[in-house]
Amino acid sequence: MTAAPDTPAGGGGTAAPILVVGSVALDEITTPTGHRDDVVGGTAVNFSAAASLFAPVQLVGVIGDDYPTHELDFLRRRGTDLSGLERRPGRSFRWGAVYHRNMNTRDTAYTDLGVFSEFDPSLPPPFRSAGWAFLGAIDPALQLSVLDQLDAPRLVACDTMNYWIERTREPLLEVIGRIDLLTLNDEEARQLSAEPNLVRAARWIRRRGPRHVVIKKGEHGALLLTDDDTFLVPGFPLDGVVDPTGAGDAFAGGMLGYLARCGSVTSREFRRAIVHGCALGSFACEAFGARRMAGLTVAEVEDRVRHFCRLTEFDVSPGPVEA
Amino acid sequence: MTAAPDTPAGGGGTAAPILVVGSVALDEITTPTGHRDDVVGGTAVNFSAAASLFAPVQLVGVIGDDYPTHELDFLRRRGTDLSGLERRPGRSFRWGAVYHRNMNTRDTAYTDLGVFSEFDPSLPPPFRSAGWAFLGAIDPALQLSVLDQLDAPRLVACDTMNYWIERTREPLLEVIGRIDLLTLNDEEARQLSAEPNLVRAARWIRRRGPRHVVIKKGEHGALLLTDDDTFLVPGFPLDGVVDPTGAGDAFAGGMLGYLARCGSVTSREFRRAIVHGCALGSFACEAFGARRMAGLTVAEVEDRVRHFCRLTEFDVSPGPVEA
Repeated sequence: MTAAPDTPAGGGGTAAPILVVGSVALDEITTPTGHRDDVVGGTAVNFSAAASLFAPVQLVGVIGDDYPTHELDFLRRRGTDLSGLERRPGRSFRWGAVYHRNMNTRDTAYTDLGVFSEFDPSLPPPFRSAGWAFLGAIDPALQLSVLDQLDAPRLVACDTMNYWIERTREPLLEVIGRIDLLTLNDEEARQLSAEPNLVRAARWIRRRGPRHVVIKKGEHGALLLTDDDTFLVPGFPLDGVVDPTGAGDAFAGGMLGYLARCGSVTSREFRRAIVHGCALGSFACEAFGARRMAGLTVAEVEDRVRHFCRLTEFDVSPGPVEA
Repeated sequence: MTAAPDTPAGGGGTAAPILVVGSVALDEITTPTGHRDDVVGGTAVNFSAAASLFAPVQLVGVIGDDYPTHELDFLRRRGTDLSGLERRPGRSFRWGAVYHRNMNTRDTAYTDLGVFSEFDPSLPPPFRSAGWAFLGAIDPALQLSVLDQLDAPRLVACDTMNYWIERTREPLLEVIGRIDLLTLNDEEARQLSAEPNLVRAARWIRRRGPRHVVIKKGEHGALLLTDDDTFLVPGFPLDGVVDPTGAGDAFAGGMLGYLARCGSVTSREFRRAIVHGCALGSFACEAFGARRMAGLTVAEVEDRVRHFCRLTEFDVSPGPVEA
């Protein structure tokens, strides 16, 4: 598989590329609204579907010979370099899940690692100088290997999950000590820090190394804690969720894509980046897999960001109470 | 018990009085941070502790002869009229609860209704012309009785809970058809509407009558849906929760107190009212019972509202993406 570097980036412009390393999967998803099999998904795909709207993406992952690679054409058209997507003999990573009626909880029906069990990310030489990197929630040993292959990225973000927190705590803490931004969900933050309070959990994580911690709260939004800023954002209120799979990865993709596009990580831009992440996370829920993001434009994202602003803004100028 | 109308209202000024009808209880609370018994609480007390910062309050409730009424002196000093607080022979309403480590879930240890089981709210004549009213989560039959006793309030808000949704659905729907604002938590909204999506649940409730619906999401903030506005606010991030009991009632008290003080229910003021409600709800969590609110000043509330604004604001002015 080769990239198509001559096609224009969807919103890439002159932004430095973002490296993403993570799963590329085929999902079987059942929600109260329907059932789909062979859905193109996984962290690397959902992240790229969001990030590629704003910056060129370099994807590193592994697939089997059953993967419908033409379904990733939309990523290529947006300037995503798929030369790091290795194809191996065997079956692709397959994951099945059934969502409950409230859409916030799900049961995993099966996890077939397939060729993903042998995943050993090797960065093509041009990827080593990526300006930005996102390490999906894979084995911390692999995350460390990727860190060793990178030259001098401006910002490395990393995700993790309960499985690695429980089983590989020490290497995970080593990863956390070497990155700039940890993204994880609220339950994972509590589990990692053994601290039930989220603000304290985020502080605990920051003391282990990362300058920035973003705690994802699903439909309840996100919390950012950095050296000099705390930012709190509610979730975008959707009146129809079709499939929440991948929303967290789309959030990370929107956030990092926006930062890469800006080229700076000031508080002002980081706050806007998180709002863009929320917008992408909400779009991700509107269709199965990455389908909604595949057809999305930057103008639609900006519309949603403005809508989000109208939904949440309030003024504290002197009113009757202060008068 | 008589009111002390000659003492100045904490922040009342010329605001029209707010009537509150609800439980006045003695709580026994165990949280990971400690244990307290005979804590002065209940809906009417926690609501009044918040609302009395902004407007005069008229409290209607019932207590037994074991109630330490001197602990309500702070309400009297803020201009709360307690002439509707009936004292009966017998024990006060007592409620015991044990909070789990995450502070978001709790087990009820016991509920002793005592004299509250005979509660039949009768409004003193001066209370019938209240400008604003809040009906706590009591039996809908009693809520209807209060509605019948009111002259022509500007706005009537009402709360409810799973107990009444399950057992007295029809009278509850009759109440909902006669009020202006329903406040309830997310699980109650889902239960009442049989609609797992919160935005749709709020729309369902609005179709039953109330112009305004406020869904309380605990630590995750609140959602407002009205004729012409949707407003979403995250919860104030506390790094130390002592006791969440009564936070929802304090939220309602802060919100209605602020509206009464403003005297208007424009979108702009309603949004600010909800942020004031979030601020009061957060203060309520900082000590057992209403203790933190008892010592609170309007200046502290306004400080927190400004802090809340700094935590949540972001700008969507054209940036690199739009350029």
